[in-house]
Amino acid sequence: MKIKSFAAKNATSPLEYFEFERRDLTAKDVEFEILYCGVCHSDVHTVRNEWKDWEPTVYPSVTGHEIVGKVTNIGKTVTKYKPGDIVGVGCMVNSCRKCKNCKNGLEQYCENGAIFTYNSKDPIDNTITKGGYSQIMIADEDFILKIPKGMDLAKAAPLLCAGITTYSPLKHWGIKKGMKVGIIGLGGLGHMGLKYAKALGAKTYIITTSPKKAADAKKYGADGVVLMSDKKSVDANKSSFDFLLNTIPVAHDLRPYLDFLATDGAMVIVGAITDLKDGFHGQSLIGMRRTIAGSSIGGIKETQEVLNFSAKHNIYPDIEIIPIEEINRAFDTLAHKGISHRFVIDMKASFKS
Amino acid sequence: MKIKSFAAKNATSPLEYFEFERRDLTAKDVEFEILYCGVCHSDVHTVRNEWKDWEPTVYPSVTGHEIVGKVTNIGKTVTKYKPGDIVGVGCMVNSCRKCKNCKNGLEQYCENGAIFTYNSKDPIDNTITKGGYSQIMIADEDFILKIPKGMDLAKAAPLLCAGITTYSPLKHWGIKKGMKVGIIGLGGLGHMGLKYAKALGAKTYIITTSPKKAADAKKYGADGVVLMSDKKSVDANKSSFDFLLNTIPVAHDLRPYLDFLATDGAMVIVGAITDLKDGFHGQSLIGMRRTIAGSSIGGIKETQEVLNFSAKHNIYPDIEIIPIEEINRAFDTLAHKGISHRFVIDMKASFKS
Repeated sequence: MKIKSFAAKNATSPLEYFEFERRDLTAKDVEFEILYCGVCHSDVHTVRNEWKDWEPTVYPSVTGHEIVGKVTNIGKTVTKYKPGDIVGVGCMVNSCRKCKNCKNGLEQYCENGAIFTYNSKDPIDNTITKGGYSQIMIADEDFILKIPKGMDLAKAAPLLCAGITTYSPLKHWGIKKGMKVGIIGLGGLGHMGLKYAKALGAKTYIITTSPKKAADAKKYGADGVVLMSDKKSVDANKSSFDFLLNTIPVAHDLRPYLDFLATDGAMVIVGAITDLKDGFHGQSLIGMRRTIAGSSIGGIKETQEVLNFSAKHNIYPDIEIIPIEEINRAFDTLAHKGISHRFVIDMKASFKS
Repeated sequence: MKIKSFAAKNATSPLEYFEFERRDLTAKDVEFEILYCGVCHSDVHTVRNEWKDWEPTVYPSVTGHEIVGKVTNIGKTVTKYKPGDIVGVGCMVNSCRKCKNCKNGLEQYCENGAIFTYNSKDPIDNTITKGGYSQIMIADEDFILKIPKGMDLAKAAPLLCAGITTYSPLKHWGIKKGMKVGIIGLGGLGHMGLKYAKALGAKTYIITTSPKKAADAKKYGADGVVLMSDKKSVDANKSSFDFLLNTIPVAHDLRPYLDFLATDGAMVIVGAITDLKDGFHGQSLIGMRRTIAGSSIGGIKETQEVLNFSAKHNIYPDIEIIPIEEINRAFDTLAHKGISHRFVIDMKASFKS
């Protein structure tokens, strides 16, 4: 079927109206009308081809991987969903299902390559996958998430990437009461990481280079703030954090942040899919048995878990709802570190102009 | 008392005969005659001031921190040792004993700074600590190790640094049967890491840039070898290791080694106390939830554990015994990656010329 979307034609053009064909439903597919789609910094990176040394962008590019909507049609053998159900799709729409990682619920690390929601080659029809800046989504039922009853649907959308990307490493590294956790960067990911770390019982700080975001941090419930330009605050927090969730989405020097880790502390990078040109001193790890690690989103089962956890603990993003026609302004705001929460596109209010 | 030693006068001079005063015994000190002292790459780094950006060397420098000997005298309140006992000293001679890390048996990460066996300021008399390239050692009984009965004393010495430095991270990261472990670098540390990883049940590979060391690896019992210049072997082992023990003692590019890690794999750096100028790509961690960490020697309790473990499992270094007069040749061999096992100084055979 032909559907409406907003797409980028190349790395420098603004997103604009674009029509494309969604493939036919297979027996296992679920089709849904998109109601809301979160705006992730990954969308900006992809549209602007900033991840070209990892995965070059194929144009036209339709991004968006925080997608919530209502089921409109299902394939012949679908058993998990029916028309009218409220569902979501996050960052993935398929994987091999056969490798060790897929079998362990870690489809994001599929040894044969996960099929991402956009800019991946769809093995079903060999087209390039297209995401949620569009009217209709189609994906295998095994990659469809159930949105818990009663959830605000606009606020549910960012849980599908910003939520799972921050929740998964906090759970994997065992964050709990008694720990001091620092969230580096306060944006869509950072403000969700802060909320989950607090829900898990940790004393949670925001670490930021932005005076404006430092001021926002307390509003989101941070127990403390470290502004990187404030030497006194930086010095007072050295070697004190058990865990750092590094959400910075661009290349940066890791060294000033490593200094914040206590003995056996770990810094987990979730945003910087880029060449980190600067090294670090070996002793900054050796001298305190510190760790630098990385983590990518979360598996399908854990994505359902974060939706349920969020419903149970009433944890939602702070959002600003926009129509698709404002997407280029939203991208510029993100690229300039101008927002400490999440833009969400109201797809019903979109395609009006 | 005045004792004989070999010392460096500056960063470029060879080690030569030197006499110095050991401080008087305190009530808690144990004095012992040094029988054997291992030659660690740390000795070379310190003598040549190669760690100046971490801890500049104070000259004259008497190195050596793999020290075994026979007790000759004890302080008034010493209860753990008596004259005639066979004992050892490793990399540390003191720490604050009060901080969280000291209380947890992690004296090497003492929050107030561990007192190392050489090139540290001794809080008791404010002199610079001097190590095992000498006749007599004096240290607090709490930092003295008991050498298990029947152990070959020359082979016991390297357990006190090369042994604990490799054993501790293998234990901490839970190495066990079913894991594929790579030991990067085959020298004093590497060949001990190989033996411990095998004893813990792992399938163990040596990863080296040296064709000569690649040939040596099988001799030490390696299950496999990766020669970094052999593209076929490098490619065949990509994304396959659960754990990498990185013993390279100089600055190097981490990226080719990170590529060897499987999902959730960890590379632990134990040798490179230096500025690692090269960065890495964020995705090399994020894309497979990989870890880079560091580890420094081990605490006193765990050092005793590795001595006992080695005795029980009959795990010893391969050594080449030399008199102190050959130390400069030994240093040059180490600096040029010329040895895949350990030099040990026979102190009884030393100071003859």
